[in-house]
Amino acid sequence: MKFCPQCGSSVELKVPEGDDRERHVCVHCDVIHYHNPKVIVGCLPEHNGKVLLCKRAIEPRYGYWTLPAGFMENRETTSEGAAREMVEEAAAVATDTTLYRVFDVPHISQVYVFYRCGIENGAYGIGPESLESQLFSEDEIPWNDLAFPVVHELLQEFFDDRRSENYPVRHSVISRGRR
Amino acid sequence: MKFCPQCGSSVELKVPEGDDRERHVCVHCDVIHYHNPKVIVGCLPEHNGKVLLCKRAIEPRYGYWTLPAGFMENRETTSEGAAREMVEEAAAVATDTTLYRVFDVPHISQVYVFYRCGIENGAYGIGPESLESQLFSEDEIPWNDLAFPVVHELLQEFFDDRRSENYPVRHSVISRGRR
Repeated sequence: MKFCPQCGSSVELKVPEGDDRERHVCVHCDVIHYHNPKVIVGCLPEHNGKVLLCKRAIEPRYGYWTLPAGFMENRETTSEGAAREMVEEAAAVATDTTLYRVFDVPHISQVYVFYRCGIENGAYGIGPESLESQLFSEDEIPWNDLAFPVVHELLQEFFDDRRSENYPVRHSVISRGRR
Repeated sequence: MKFCPQCGSSVELKVPEGDDRERHVCVHCDVIHYHNPKVIVGCLPEHNGKVLLCKRAIEPRYGYWTLPAGFMENRETTSEGAAREMVEEAAAVATDTTLYRVFDVPHISQVYVFYRCGIENGAYGIGPESLESQLFSEDEIPWNDLAFPVVHELLQEFFDDRRSENYPVRHSVISRGRR
């Protein structure tokens, strides 16, 4: 940030009074511009014992398999956002969305919130950000072609949880150095 | 937003190609400026069966009791942020932070993430945003003087969960019309 989004003047980095870290502050109107982490919302869709994955049609990780997920929008809930991503990426309608997983990714200032869900009528297709969509049983999952470590970790946990018939909501941190 | 934070030119609201909603787009450099929900991180600190609350020294809800919570900062995890807020508002160090609760507040584009925790050495004080800090047993909680509905809901759930010795991680939505 170089210019104040409110008045167009220059901003400088300084520690505002009563604060303990540098912020972008407008030299003209004194407005403080805060920058905060972004939330990624996603689904782990299951139907007839299989999980729906999408093959990415965009970078990063073009051609690798992922769960439907993306940036949360203003004025929606995390579960609405997760369901929206499922429509956009897999042309599928989420049912019974249930909170399942929180990941922190602090080096890129992101928080991931994932929901388990069903797929209405088992119907799915291909959204503009996907090359393919497909239902996979546990032994069909393309483990070596998953797009991101959160997808790998989430799928492993899910199949373990399903064996124990217990789906606790977990939280963990993805550190720098892992994809 | 009226001006591009990158180049200082005017921005206009328009739907970018391939998008489905209006964004602020710079008329000069074409950068799209996204606005996303903010995360509030907080603690429910327990020590010797009592819960630590802080009396707010700031608006909104000056003089009402709340749990330590505030905006998540870039480059921290949700649990680090919750612990930081506990230092800032109650001069207390969180131990054993455990994910406990997610609230969506879509009409103000916020997501709350709360952790249960202990208090190191049972020591606490008063931060700059608090008038007082105090440990309360369940029958001492100032139910009529709590600052926000999330605090009320969270404390009720916590005492119920404690009776059943089971603390599931829950998610719910706080709708417009409730404080």
